[in-house]
Amino acid sequence: MSAKIILVVCDGLGDRPIKDIGFRTPLEASRKPSMDFIAANGVCGIMDPIAPGVRPGSAPAHLAIFGYNPYEYYKGRGVFEALGIGIDVKPGDLTFRVNLATVDDNLMVIDRRAGRIGGDDSRILFQLLDEELRIPGVELRFYPGVEHRGVLVIRGEGLSWLVSDTDPERDGAPILVCKPLDGSVEAKRTAELVNRISMDAYRILSKAEVNRRRFSEGKLQANALLIRGASFYEPIPRVTERYGLKACCIAGGPLYKGVARYVGMDVIDVKGATGTYESDFKAKVDACVKALESYDLIYLHFKATDLAGEDGNYRRKIELIERIDDALYMIIDKVEDYVIALTADHSTPCSIRTHSADPVPIAIAGPDVRVDDIGRFEERVCSKGGLGRIRGLDLMPILLDIVNLTHKYGA
Amino acid sequence: MSAKIILVVCDGLGDRPIKDIGFRTPLEASRKPSMDFIAANGVCGIMDPIAPGVRPGSAPAHLAIFGYNPYEYYKGRGVFEALGIGIDVKPGDLTFRVNLATVDDNLMVIDRRAGRIGGDDSRILFQLLDEELRIPGVELRFYPGVEHRGVLVIRGEGLSWLVSDTDPERDGAPILVCKPLDGSVEAKRTAELVNRISMDAYRILSKAEVNRRRFSEGKLQANALLIRGASFYEPIPRVTERYGLKACCIAGGPLYKGVARYVGMDVIDVKGATGTYESDFKAKVDACVKALESYDLIYLHFKATDLAGEDGNYRRKIELIERIDDALYMIIDKVEDYVIALTADHSTPCSIRTHSADPVPIAIAGPDVRVDDIGRFEERVCSKGGLGRIRGLDLMPILLDIVNLTHKYGA
Repeated sequence: MSAKIILVVCDGLGDRPIKDIGFRTPLEASRKPSMDFIAANGVCGIMDPIAPGVRPGSAPAHLAIFGYNPYEYYKGRGVFEALGIGIDVKPGDLTFRVNLATVDDNLMVIDRRAGRIGGDDSRILFQLLDEELRIPGVELRFYPGVEHRGVLVIRGEGLSWLVSDTDPERDGAPILVCKPLDGSVEAKRTAELVNRISMDAYRILSKAEVNRRRFSEGKLQANALLIRGASFYEPIPRVTERYGLKACCIAGGPLYKGVARYVGMDVIDVKGATGTYESDFKAKVDACVKALESYDLIYLHFKATDLAGEDGNYRRKIELIERIDDALYMIIDKVEDYVIALTADHSTPCSIRTHSADPVPIAIAGPDVRVDDIGRFEERVCSKGGLGRIRGLDLMPILLDIVNLTHKYGA
Repeated sequence: MSAKIILVVCDGLGDRPIKDIGFRTPLEASRKPSMDFIAANGVCGIMDPIAPGVRPGSAPAHLAIFGYNPYEYYKGRGVFEALGIGIDVKPGDLTFRVNLATVDDNLMVIDRRAGRIGGDDSRILFQLLDEELRIPGVELRFYPGVEHRGVLVIRGEGLSWLVSDTDPERDGAPILVCKPLDGSVEAKRTAELVNRISMDAYRILSKAEVNRRRFSEGKLQANALLIRGASFYEPIPRVTERYGLKACCIAGGPLYKGVARYVGMDVIDVKGATGTYESDFKAKVDACVKALESYDLIYLHFKATDLAGEDGNYRRKIELIERIDDALYMIIDKVEDYVIALTADHSTPCSIRTHSADPVPIAIAGPDVRVDDIGRFEERVCSKGGLGRIRGLDLMPILLDIVNLTHKYGA
């Protein structure tokens, strides 16, 4: 058989029983023939992305699913966002996610997203910071991202990623003071640096021509920077070398592209893949089919299910599951030749609007798989499947073994 | 939902199939509507208290169930007994369980329990030891416990808990010589100390007025001390700080109260709760219901099932399961608002009369739980439940996640 693997991850797919739909989960309440086909033609189970009872962030969960122990390889989120928007991050770089925001004269946050500023205004302001914000002893770089978002890279000696965010995570609160998260000299120094950047950015942005114009137009000024997700980048072993597989990523959200780049996957840009509700799911699955020609491992990510969970909108979650299922119809016949693994990176129950540690369903279909009697891709039914209860870190070894790419341990 | 958790632990509940009752376990042969109700309204599974194939002692099993890795936090049993009877143990104290025993002139043990001496006789003898047994360089304290039992605390520098017991664990054998269990100077010194205490105690007890009187009354003299369960006490993080939950313990046996105090739970004393066959189960469940007013985590322990297992008496085990079940009827309606977890700390099969590593059943009921199709709280049926096979250390994180007290790992 061919050693090709399609790994489909529906973000935040798992859920808890919802009273309004008869104590079913959105998955259980969905019409999803493609997903059920994969379950029926595969071996099913449930998976703790990190470990039982551990609520996974998306980045560490993906690292685990890709076979990288997050407790070893996860050093903050910023680097994934940076890699996700294509920044050429260098070993030793300290990276942060930043927001352009609106604050009043007392540095109280009026809008964490400066009215979702974007386009030229955002680009010009990040360029201004990149040109004017200078601190002796370190190199600072600012890059625009999507809408109000951007990335800050600090290059220099003696830095640490163990510092807190300046983002208060809600409007009406002041910009926070960045604090060291351990007792090291490096964290102390980095926190001081971040606070200085925070103040200098306010000074530079307040005087920017763009903001004067926005003010005269009655728009929110982007006069401050919220800094978060400190992250240290060092290169790690690539999937290609570790597994002997040429791997690619098809995703809309920058974070997921970033994690994929971090582990050495190629990122295939797909028109219409946005990581939002409106993302073109069919275009992504179409790209996946094409990628089978040149890649051995294709990671296909759908973000929208997680967004519906965070919105607490189970009807939308069901609708999105059904739309993703519809798109997946194009690849279900691939189980004759290839391995398809279908799962999630974590649960995002609509009832709590955030990630939970509830295990996610997992189905692995393809030739040579011990197909079990489970025919529905759902949290509870899959718990009775032939895989039992596994962990995220188990997944890649299991997939590699099915396609006979594992090596004997001992003799 | 309210973040309250009731954790019910029936000691030694798990068992192996017994031929005389149709190859069923005592649980499988019991009429237990309350336990089955919890299973039916919950998600079920089986649990290895420590790990598959590891026979758990009660103390390390409880530590694991409370979320404390026993390989890190378990340092001998004595400290739990000491805390259990309310001794104010200090950091660095070396504690032992001791028995008053009867030996002959050759130090052969005639009765390990000195005819189950207790009451004033026992109290006076422990007081005598406390006053008269002095060894330069260390402080020795003796405390009476239940019946023939007591606690020895050694305070001083350079001590170790890695020493063997002097208790031969059977009558007709000599008092054992305490030996160091590793090559350290501390263990060697502690073993020498224990042997000296052993000899001095014999000398002091042999001359005691109480024993002269007992001799004249034809009673067994309590003329020796059996020393076991060396244990080192150092404070550990409390459940309150670790989990943000106010926790209490409702138990009869001193060991269980001791483990609960060790992890920082309040101990609620219940009249009639004795940790024996005759314990007032209903009074305990009643206290549990009351405790819901002021506590977030209530650990409710029943010892009797373990005693029946150790007696090899499956009929009694069945009867006790049914009596406990009857008492639990008072709390089953709490699953509408609170989380109830029902499990055991280990199996005590009647056939082997001691602990085994057979996994124990576990059921977790309450709002927001992925209720599965299991309706009987039994070892084999629960193994088909939605939880799959978990470990003791997984339990607390899973419970905390259900009540949304976990924090996201990474972003």
